[in-house]
Amino acid sequence: MDIEKRLLGKDKRAAARLISLLENKDPEGLEILKKLYHKSGNAFVIGITGPPGAGKSTLTDKLAKALRKQDKSVSIIAVDPTSPFTGGAILGDRVRMNDLSMDSGVFIRSMGARGHLGGISEATSAAIKVLDIMGSDYIFIETVGVGQSEIDIVKNCDTTVMVMVPGLGDDIQAIKAGVMEIGDVFAVNKSDRDGAKRTAREIEMMLDFNKDVKWRPPVKMVVAVDNQGIDELLESIHMHRTYMIDNELFDERRANNAKNEVVELIKERIEHTILDKSQKEEKLEYYAKRVADREMDPYSAVDAVFDDVKSALQV
Amino acid sequence: MDIEKRLLGKDKRAAARLISLLENKDPEGLEILKKLYHKSGNAFVIGITGPPGAGKSTLTDKLAKALRKQDKSVSIIAVDPTSPFTGGAILGDRVRMNDLSMDSGVFIRSMGARGHLGGISEATSAAIKVLDIMGSDYIFIETVGVGQSEIDIVKNCDTTVMVMVPGLGDDIQAIKAGVMEIGDVFAVNKSDRDGAKRTAREIEMMLDFNKDVKWRPPVKMVVAVDNQGIDELLESIHMHRTYMIDNELFDERRANNAKNEVVELIKERIEHTILDKSQKEEKLEYYAKRVADREMDPYSAVDAVFDDVKSALQV
Repeated sequence: MDIEKRLLGKDKRAAARLISLLENKDPEGLEILKKLYHKSGNAFVIGITGPPGAGKSTLTDKLAKALRKQDKSVSIIAVDPTSPFTGGAILGDRVRMNDLSMDSGVFIRSMGARGHLGGISEATSAAIKVLDIMGSDYIFIETVGVGQSEIDIVKNCDTTVMVMVPGLGDDIQAIKAGVMEIGDVFAVNKSDRDGAKRTAREIEMMLDFNKDVKWRPPVKMVVAVDNQGIDELLESIHMHRTYMIDNELFDERRANNAKNEVVELIKERIEHTILDKSQKEEKLEYYAKRVADREMDPYSAVDAVFDDVKSALQV
Repeated sequence: MDIEKRLLGKDKRAAARLISLLENKDPEGLEILKKLYHKSGNAFVIGITGPPGAGKSTLTDKLAKALRKQDKSVSIIAVDPTSPFTGGAILGDRVRMNDLSMDSGVFIRSMGARGHLGGISEATSAAIKVLDIMGSDYIFIETVGVGQSEIDIVKNCDTTVMVMVPGLGDDIQAIKAGVMEIGDVFAVNKSDRDGAKRTAREIEMMLDFNKDVKWRPPVKMVVAVDNQGIDELLESIHMHRTYMIDNELFDERRANNAKNEVVELIKERIEHTILDKSQKEEKLEYYAKRVADREMDPYSAVDAVFDDVKSALQV
């Protein structure tokens, strides 16, 4: 017991326990977080995103090790919105069954889509707060892919690194277009491979289109597996943070992130209210069946359910 | 004008126009859809999903061509939740600037994440209805990747084909675990490549775990680019449909899909109501700033905003 005291004493098991409680929307866990929330805000939260196969886990590990040499404490949350697993041994952990997990200054956690109530983005926000309160200097949020869920997740971050890799084919090129804007720093990993320079050039060209932005995201060449370019990448990450602070954009981004979180939490609460109420009364099933049978169109069904929702919110 | 009459006369441009109207939540478009909704429900809606690079576009094209030989009309919606583009020349269309697009019995449409109001899953649902009303015998919904958004999208389908491919690396293997359950039929594409049999075996092993399910998803080997295994895959897709109908699961799935859609539409409407109202009053900004400044925790902010939301919903 006394998770609170243990967390403030940098006990990693207390952090893990509190994150699990929050994943389950445990009221006690929530009370602890609310009470300690004012102690958060000191960690530098870094998103690591990019397509599958880009080597994000390895890159995150190397960045973490570089920071450990400077005696900084580091937390890593590996988030997989498509995985049913949480907390345990998925992806991130599997790769990391190495010296990092033995290091007392490193906390590692996997989060999946299920195993917690509510959205994964909200669960990630809560975990960040816990690790921030624990006193982590750096918190890495690593995603598995780069879809809409991942975009929502990195909205919790101060700086986002978009990891690219040469030769991932046309589909990946198409994906890039929609997500370029979330990258504050770009890393071309496996840059000893053929086509790395072309990939970097393509990123630069895309960045050229975005003339509104004052911060020009740097594109760094790395070979994570050989520890090449890691220090330079870390420098770029810090440069972005300094730029944000100097231009009064840092507080703005954090306010924006907070706004996103509050909106998501409201949506989540309303959703539960609707579903609980409508499920209980089996109204949703009734209307869904009518829609499926083509007796009623879905838009009229929404009108019908909506009145019900309003009264549910009066509770 | 008179989109309604033209749509019922199988005019593809009328369908395209109506889909655009619906993407923009145009009230007139919505009225047409509500009026004609009872004419929908006859098309067989097939989801084609899987990781980037699996060759989903090519496979969809070949399936469409096989159906055209049987004189069936076919619609293809290529959905990319991470692309900012819509309606125009992204991915799907680019690859398909071939004989298919010249065929009067084929309708092709791309949908991106933006360029329409509301969620992409709801926009896809609306487009399916339009093409169904137009009299398409088959509607293919093809996704670009396989994240959470894509899972939501294929919840609109009667049968979902999960396309795999040999040698996509460890990250893809990890992704598979969470999404296996959405596949009713599996296709191992590019099965002339090394490792295809191993990929098929791995899929079979994963399917072995799922003992609850009566329908055992078949795993078919295809080489889409050479038109190999396409007829056999199509047969499996039809077998799944027959199985669903024979076991009274078809109506159940459609009712479930309808329920998902109604819930999503309600969430969407509530979200707009909250955001409109809160933005206007700048309350959200006020609380977000307090949260970012650590003067208030986000959970208490939600409590504070919630009262506001309730009154907004009274409108």
